[in-house]
Amino acid sequence: MTSEAEMAAEEGYIYSPPTFPSTPCSIHLGVQAGSMRRGSDVLSTSGGRMRERGRNRSWLLSSIITVNVLILGIALVSGSVFNNIKINAIDLQIFLIVLVILTTAWMLYYTIYTSREDHAVLYKDSHAGPVWLRGGLVLFGICSLIMDVFKIANYVGYLHCDSAVKIVFPAVQSVFILVQTYFLWLHAKDCVQLQRNITRCGLMLTLSTNLMLWMAAVTEESIHQTVVPPEEGNSTHSCDIRAPGGYSSCNCSHSACAILEKAYYYLYPFNIEYSLFASAMAYVMWKNVGRLVDEHNHHSLHFHLKDVLVGPVVGLVMLVAGLGTFVIYEVDVEKGDPGKRDTALMIHYVMNTVAVTLMSVSTVAGCAIYRLDQRDHVSGKNPTRSLDVGLLIGASIGQFTICYFTIVAVVGTGAMGHLNALNLAVSLLTVIQLCLQNIFIIEGLHREPFHEDMHRASVFTNPYVLQAQAHRDIHNLPGTFMETKLSPALTVHSMHVAPSGSPLPQRHRLTWKRRALKEICAFLLLCNILLWIMPAFGARPQFDNTIGAEFYEFTMWVAVVNIGLPFGIFYRMHSVASLFEVFLTS
Amino acid sequence: MTSEAEMAAEEGYIYSPPTFPSTPCSIHLGVQAGSMRRGSDVLSTSGGRMRERGRNRSWLLSSIITVNVLILGIALVSGSVFNNIKINAIDLQIFLIVLVILTTAWMLYYTIYTSREDHAVLYKDSHAGPVWLRGGLVLFGICSLIMDVFKIANYVGYLHCDSAVKIVFPAVQSVFILVQTYFLWLHAKDCVQLQRNITRCGLMLTLSTNLMLWMAAVTEESIHQTVVPPEEGNSTHSCDIRAPGGYSSCNCSHSACAILEKAYYYLYPFNIEYSLFASAMAYVMWKNVGRLVDEHNHHSLHFHLKDVLVGPVVGLVMLVAGLGTFVIYEVDVEKGDPGKRDTALMIHYVMNTVAVTLMSVSTVAGCAIYRLDQRDHVSGKNPTRSLDVGLLIGASIGQFTICYFTIVAVVGTGAMGHLNALNLAVSLLTVIQLCLQNIFIIEGLHREPFHEDMHRASVFTNPYVLQAQAHRDIHNLPGTFMETKLSPALTVHSMHVAPSGSPLPQRHRLTWKRRALKEICAFLLLCNILLWIMPAFGARPQFDNTIGAEFYEFTMWVAVVNIGLPFGIFYRMHSVASLFEVFLTS
Repeated sequence: MTSEAEMAAEEGYIYSPPTFPSTPCSIHLGVQAGSMRRGSDVLSTSGGRMRERGRNRSWLLSSIITVNVLILGIALVSGSVFNNIKINAIDLQIFLIVLVILTTAWMLYYTIYTSREDHAVLYKDSHAGPVWLRGGLVLFGICSLIMDVFKIANYVGYLHCDSAVKIVFPAVQSVFILVQTYFLWLHAKDCVQLQRNITRCGLMLTLSTNLMLWMAAVTEESIHQTVVPPEEGNSTHSCDIRAPGGYSSCNCSHSACAILEKAYYYLYPFNIEYSLFASAMAYVMWKNVGRLVDEHNHHSLHFHLKDVLVGPVVGLVMLVAGLGTFVIYEVDVEKGDPGKRDTALMIHYVMNTVAVTLMSVSTVAGCAIYRLDQRDHVSGKNPTRSLDVGLLIGASIGQFTICYFTIVAVVGTGAMGHLNALNLAVSLLTVIQLCLQNIFIIEGLHREPFHEDMHRASVFTNPYVLQAQAHRDIHNLPGTFMETKLSPALTVHSMHVAPSGSPLPQRHRLTWKRRALKEICAFLLLCNILLWIMPAFGARPQFDNTIGAEFYEFTMWVAVVNIGLPFGIFYRMHSVASLFEVFLTS
Repeated sequence: MTSEAEMAAEEGYIYSPPTFPSTPCSIHLGVQAGSMRRGSDVLSTSGGRMRERGRNRSWLLSSIITVNVLILGIALVSGSVFNNIKINAIDLQIFLIVLVILTTAWMLYYTIYTSREDHAVLYKDSHAGPVWLRGGLVLFGICSLIMDVFKIANYVGYLHCDSAVKIVFPAVQSVFILVQTYFLWLHAKDCVQLQRNITRCGLMLTLSTNLMLWMAAVTEESIHQTVVPPEEGNSTHSCDIRAPGGYSSCNCSHSACAILEKAYYYLYPFNIEYSLFASAMAYVMWKNVGRLVDEHNHHSLHFHLKDVLVGPVVGLVMLVAGLGTFVIYEVDVEKGDPGKRDTALMIHYVMNTVAVTLMSVSTVAGCAIYRLDQRDHVSGKNPTRSLDVGLLIGASIGQFTICYFTIVAVVGTGAMGHLNALNLAVSLLTVIQLCLQNIFIIEGLHREPFHEDMHRASVFTNPYVLQAQAHRDIHNLPGTFMETKLSPALTVHSMHVAPSGSPLPQRHRLTWKRRALKEICAFLLLCNILLWIMPAFGARPQFDNTIGAEFYEFTMWVAVVNIGLPFGIFYRMHSVASLFEVFLTS
């Protein structure tokens, strides 16, 4: 649930500060800011009152649309899975088709409207839609398109005895994916100023549609896995679940069906990731509607590896070793021999234990350095950063869930054998690692960049904070009233320099800390890539080790893993991007 | 997930405005504000930087604690319900006992600490912990205590063959309920300033504990209902679910067991509501930690009914008629005769249809009056109001869920007969009514109170907004620079007066609108009380009409109703309180 307080936080941005101090950054953006203001005058002739009222209304309306669409969707999904009377899933598919067509129509309308209107998009949020998110979207979009083509080819074979809606849905979905990828690639950074009410509702519709597609895909994949349990083929679990397509007596008319079905089954996880990525981007765009961004916090930080050595080297060693064990794991599990599978699982767990332990230790070191470090925290509001933090913690819940479910299952059954012990150890250590990494990344994102000349500029960014700080200083030091307007930044600055004497040695000591932080970031980044690759490309130790499926009911366990794992993958990608940012600012 | 942006919204409160305009309200609070500032100087000698850093850290830490406790709890609950191996629920109970003891200890520590320290609580949030919430907490707390006593008496009978943990848990829980009710009654309005880190973590622990108790109670009630299906006793559903206490071969040693079990089964819903109430209050307290409130928006509004007549009268008629049908319904359903049950259900549905339709129509009228009405929207940030709105929308999701699940079930089975048609109509109309009522209440809460003399005072409350508005005005009207500081409120005010000529006729027209709004509020308030009483005191048409249980699997349907209904009850109570506030400000 997104609360109004978050909206209120944006308000601080809408009332833009009266005067920019003439730092190099603000001079650079001066012309742009001028043209922006002219544009916004055209829009806001009737004052801020109408604007605020409009925001409240459209915020409320779009929230209500989302709630209704999502809950109706959940009811339909539950109805198609958990019902005693065998109703087919056509109703759900018709609902999805309607949603997808509406969303596609809105996205086309928006794209055409903004391309014709001159002042439609005056502001861009440079933090929104970073390159990893857009790149991932395109990659997963291509995989989803291939999946849809396979699906259509497959369903054509069943056309003589099954509903035509089953072909319409993937066809419509492929158009939707094309339009949406184009739309988000172009417009992910937009801070929309015109037609805010319609845009807010449209974006919430996009978000709902993507979440519904995600839910439908997760359900379909879970049912698929429940019907064809990996290897064992024990039919006790599948008796009460319907066949995936609902056609038990219907035979495919062409020979490629079996291969196609197997192929698109492997592409499901990519489609699930695609929906998650698109949801995240639509949500960020929704938050940015009506926002007037001040860009002067955007430093040009350069990436160079010359200072760091240990972190990247150890990280690369881990990455190579991890990929090696991953290949061994995949090959051994594919053979289907229980003995080989246990060995493969053991190697996988050992590798993960080592990786996660090293990551935890280095993260603790990083947090300790932050404690020693006297760098300023970024003051002022930054909705994008808050969103980043929210997405990071939100996405980590998926991984947390799988870990805690595994822990309960292992402890609940009594934890015999070294395989279970390793499984338990990996889960416990991963929980610790997730907590520590979240703390480390969030601390890092909240620090000011390590640039001496940038330091003052960034302190001046939010004049309200400055002003308020000045007023507080009046109360603390009643005599210094005259110098309040500019002094706080300076006094804060000199407080840092004071304990160590002259500024120069302080700078050298900082360099030592900076280097350590950069090493840690590089190491963590590479390890997160490793932990991303393994689940993204098909490692499923949760199913290969049967303890989870045995302890919980099989359907329950499949649901937990299928919901949790995509979020885990998203979390690792997000962590890589955030660690890269922390690396640059350290 | 609570985002940092909400936190950032509070920041605006921490930097309190430099000067209060001397309206009667602010004069009244002048002394208090002075003593507050002195207190906060004692605390914040090291400046806002440390404070902000501390807030970030403790916010993060308390969030991580909550995530971990809740996910571990979900895993334990799932493990005790969905496992194939028959493990008893002792592990879950031990976990709950540990949580409850820790929370009780912290609450005692907090109470003792604040009573000894002079400056511990300098600020009170007058909107937090309103009387309906605290009253409800005490009422439901007493019912929960009785339930615990019954449970202990019941489990004593099984002591010779079952674990002693089963007695320990209700004993510990009853102490917890006593301490927590006392704690929340006294401290619900506190804006804690000392030991903020510990307090934040403690409050999040309280929240997690209450949510875990809620989850455990919902699960236990659902299992109970699944084992003893109402009336029919069809054993197909109950075969795979364990007996409620896990003692199939264990007999009670005293004769009162059967009665006690039946008695405490009726008290479960109150315990579930208690946990929800306590969670909401703990969350509000958590949001208020470190907040410095400016109280000058707190007008003393008086309640008098002399202007309104139609609304209360029609509302009372509805209430009496509704209570009459409710009694008939309860009596007829209790008899267990299918024919009588269908008649009772029909009367119940007709009553609900009439009530919900009238409510929807009057809400539409209310929204139309808001559109005509030129009253100002409240500007400036108000975390409590945002929380109220968030809780309102969040709680309505429970009712939405039940309605949509019913709609899908009725449409999915083909909707034969007038009973199903009525069921569908009630569900559809309730969805519409919920949407409209949410819009009406939120619009109402965002309006300035209807007091002519208060009008200017409230516009002056947020000097930053004023200032920003002034700067915007500079751009719009470049010539009026000299009068910016005070003019916006006046120009806005005169804009309202202008269209209708002199102020006096305008005032009369406003009175007409005010009266209509008050009538609508009074009517909606009484209808919401009716819709609260029926589910709170045991009407369960969702189970008496078997369509939901037939369409979905029975366990699924029980889970949906048991999770959704308590939120629905909470929503109605919250609506009553909010409508009362809207009534006062109209």
